[in-house]
Amino acid sequence: MSDITMIRAAADRLKGHARRTPLLSSPFLDEIAGRRVFVKPECLQHTGSFKYRGGRSALSALDGETRAKGVLAYSSGNHAQGVAKAAAEYGVPAVIIMPADAPKLKIDNTRALGAEVVLYDRENGESREAVGEALKAERGLTLVKPFDEPLVIAGQGTCGLEIAEQAREEGIETGDVLVCCGGGGFTAGVAMALEADAPGFRVRPVEPEGFDDVTRSLESGQRESNARASGNICDAILTPAPGEITFPIMQRLCGPGIAVSEDECLRAMGVAFQRLKLVAEPGGAAALAGALYHGDEIEGDTVICTISGGNVDAQVFRRALATLDDAP
Amino acid sequence: MSDITMIRAAADRLKGHARRTPLLSSPFLDEIAGRRVFVKPECLQHTGSFKYRGGRSALSALDGETRAKGVLAYSSGNHAQGVAKAAAEYGVPAVIIMPADAPKLKIDNTRALGAEVVLYDRENGESREAVGEALKAERGLTLVKPFDEPLVIAGQGTCGLEIAEQAREEGIETGDVLVCCGGGGFTAGVAMALEADAPGFRVRPVEPEGFDDVTRSLESGQRESNARASGNICDAILTPAPGEITFPIMQRLCGPGIAVSEDECLRAMGVAFQRLKLVAEPGGAAALAGALYHGDEIEGDTVICTISGGNVDAQVFRRALATLDDAP
Repeated sequence: MSDITMIRAAADRLKGHARRTPLLSSPFLDEIAGRRVFVKPECLQHTGSFKYRGGRSALSALDGETRAKGVLAYSSGNHAQGVAKAAAEYGVPAVIIMPADAPKLKIDNTRALGAEVVLYDRENGESREAVGEALKAERGLTLVKPFDEPLVIAGQGTCGLEIAEQAREEGIETGDVLVCCGGGGFTAGVAMALEADAPGFRVRPVEPEGFDDVTRSLESGQRESNARASGNICDAILTPAPGEITFPIMQRLCGPGIAVSEDECLRAMGVAFQRLKLVAEPGGAAALAGALYHGDEIEGDTVICTISGGNVDAQVFRRALATLDDAP
Repeated sequence: MSDITMIRAAADRLKGHARRTPLLSSPFLDEIAGRRVFVKPECLQHTGSFKYRGGRSALSALDGETRAKGVLAYSSGNHAQGVAKAAAEYGVPAVIIMPADAPKLKIDNTRALGAEVVLYDRENGESREAVGEALKAERGLTLVKPFDEPLVIAGQGTCGLEIAEQAREEGIETGDVLVCCGGGGFTAGVAMALEADAPGFRVRPVEPEGFDDVTRSLESGQRESNARASGNICDAILTPAPGEITFPIMQRLCGPGIAVSEDECLRAMGVAFQRLKLVAEPGGAAALAGALYHGDEIEGDTVICTISGGNVDAQVFRRALATLDDAP
């Protein structure tokens, strides 16, 4: 059961731990988008993504004895870092199972945050679940799922409470809120928070082209899967299908999804660099790409979009810089 | 006359206009520096630098009739954008005199913010003052000086009020506060704010090697000049000498200056990219470079450093990315 009460309880537990990220804007973004654009930069959150909120929410809700045995997570990187940092704060072990082809920065950071990283080969069909189940049984670890877990959804939803408050401060009462969407934990959490605190807003999931399972699921009314598991620069938001818990929430609260191209994400990263002085990762720039380049799919004079994370290697960032006019 | 009363008055006038930038940290920075590091990212301020504070402070203090005739500023870029945006907000003309070799992004942005940009050739000794005086007389413009102006110093000082408040929230009462220093408006303003609201902190000006006029002036007890006017990537903080108004304030309140190399600034930009998800310009990364690479010149367990701006071209940013380990 996921609801606003759980989100408010998570906000209480996160107080003094999660950062209240600002709500930013720039006249240059408004000009590109043709409407007022606000950006919620979760790349400035601890560990460089909103995932710290969910990780800390889950860890802080465990009873002390269970937590002391340690936690286990499957993640391509951002959830890994969020859980690793939360575990380090409590001084408990974290074992993270990551695909061997995850960005090097994310693997390195997860280790540097004190977690034990176990790599598996996703391209060759190795089952991360088999690897994880064995470790779980052996050590008594508690699994922290990346999105289909009420405590994690509640943690991500705290970002929505902040958006509601900050929109009120800006005097905005209606508009589309674009959320970078993988399995839907962030999207569902933010949507529930806005339903309660800023009901004039509508949440829109934004996904990479070819990995638009949520968009298609919202259209068909049932959970649809992606044909592929990888092969897109938006590594942070490539998930096989919407969650069992997150999908009904999105179905009830979210407007149609938006699918953005890799090139649009790279261009949005360039804009975030030049106009907001922010480092966005490709998947983290998906919602901004939607706001800037899919204006015809958006209603209203105002759009708020999340930058969900900024954990990007220099190599990929160079491709974003190359989209700018002043690039040599 | 510059004092804390003027800074508090500027803070009142800036309310709802200037952004309250967050105070950030990362365990990775602490590890490099060997002490706790906090970062005040003024690159997230409107126009990408703290200069908006001073520009808005000056414009908001003018009487309506004077302001309506328009304002004039000399600037290599950041002060230009700060004044241009403040003028645009009031709907009054801004004429900005910029060196022809200023970063293209800064010239373009100043124009895009609605200002009239007049370029002069600093390498060949063309006098910007001569150009400016003629325009001023002809059109009745009010000159907004970049640093040696009490209203501008007061505006920059509002950043110091925020640092004092945020340090208190973090439970820190003592430490060095490193400020990226050109003519000293930012440094003097922050120092006066901390003297009043957080007297356990000591402000340290950080300058580029070869342009350490403030550092040498603090040592000798009189205003010293730099041998060169340009030729360093830290374009934002290259000034000929400390200001007549700013120097006595710095002399009274600031600890010894720190001089950082171009390479250290580029490396600090890389760290800000990787660990803070922030875009810093070379001069804006000077204080962070001091915190990370000049630890032996810093006292205490905690250092707070400003990132004063983020207006950097993609070309220069690539040089910062090249300092990172994962660069190919």
